Amino acid sequence: MDGRSARKRQAIMDAATELFLANGYQGTSMDEIAALAEVSKQTVYKNFADKQQLFAEIVLGTAARADEFVRAIPGVLADAPDVEAGLRTLARRYLAAVMRPELLQLRRLVISEAGHFPDLARDYYKRAPDHVMATLAAQFGDLSEKGLLDLDDPDAAASHYAFLVLGHPLDRAMFLGAECGLTPTAMNKHADAAVGVFLAAYRPD
Amino acid sequence: MDGRSARKRQAIMDAATELFLANGYQGTSMDEIAALAEVSKQTVYKNFADKQQLFAEIVLGTAARADEFVRAIPGVLADAPDVEAGLRTLARRYLAAVMRPELLQLRRLVISEAGHFPDLARDYYKRAPDHVMATLAAQFGDLSEKGLLDLDDPDAAASHYAFLVLGHPLDRAMFLGAECGLTPTAMNKHADAAVGVFLAAYRPD
Repeated sequence: MDGRSARKRQAIMDAATELFLANGYQGTSMDEIAALAEVSKQTVYKNFADKQQLFAEIVLGTAARADEFVRAIPGVLADAPDVEAGLRTLARRYLAAVMRPELLQLRRLVISEAGHFPDLARDYYKRAPDHVMATLAAQFGDLSEKGLLDLDDPDAAASHYAFLVLGHPLDRAMFLGAECGLTPTAMNKHADAAVGVFLAAYRPD
Repeated sequence: MDGRSARKRQAIMDAATELFLANGYQGTSMDEIAALAEVSKQTVYKNFADKQQLFAEIVLGTAARADEFVRAIPGVLADAPDVEAGLRTLARRYLAAVMRPELLQLRRLVISEAGHFPDLARDYYKRAPDHVMATLAAQFGDLSEKGLLDLDDPDAAASHYAFLVLGHPLDRAMFLGAECGLTPTAMNKHADAAVGVFLAAYRPD
């Protein structure tokens, strides 16, 4: 794909993302996407077979961004002076990553459309939240083998860590909107307290 | 209201609930509600000013059902032989209550429509999840005063308890649907493990 075609494709993705997040899937037409992207409708259909394919590419493209965080996890834990410091840094980054307003909006949109597009919702869940939790579980298993955490069930520990850190802020944001989020200071305090509870359960004696 | 009018009103509420949950707010018309309820459209409008009012009554009626659980909380904790047993019974009941399929569907619907009806989403959140957490916080504060839990911040403890218990199953259900829920046995195991983590952090020395 030459530069001009790639730019047009990106303009269509950007326009579609903006419209889907603002007006929902049903409330967005390919005509509006073409108009906002400043391309012809023909160009939209040359790039994307239909609205459903465009929606799926946007959702799964966002899920792929979880990979950045997944790749960072081992380094954050390895580079910290001790397990507690590593888990705190990780918790703060995890919460900040998940609470980005555009990600919260997309998350709400995927939940909204999960009835119509169950396979897409499942793929998103597998590639983003589940992928992060599986990576956490593997890391926690390693820390347990090194005697730095005390746990039998790495998957359960990863679930406890994830929902101590994310659960409440994320749930609030689904109902109250991204604008009702915590301040960065409150988020860090929340993340630190979550790690405190986690370590009370999983710190070796 | 006489019996016949009350029955018609209930038939309209039931029909509207079924259609909203199946087809969403936008995908449901007052005509369809009247047809499914086997009443005239005039009767629908005699009972409910418009579709929005009908939707709000259904959502807030469901939120009111959280009151049953809220009222049960002090008794569950008081009747148990010890704090751990009380917290376990409560966690199992809490999870079972929140994971009812029709409640999960309604929760997804409220999240879907939170952009269009932010005040309704806020009211729902305040009357249901927030109300439960405030009640838990008050109870945990009492237990702390009696020396049965060790905590400084009852609100944080309630949030940790709630999301250890509910966070992961609820999040999965939002994406994967009520039918991907845990078995009752798996839910009880999850609830027990959550209480274990909570007490590791909040049990007095």
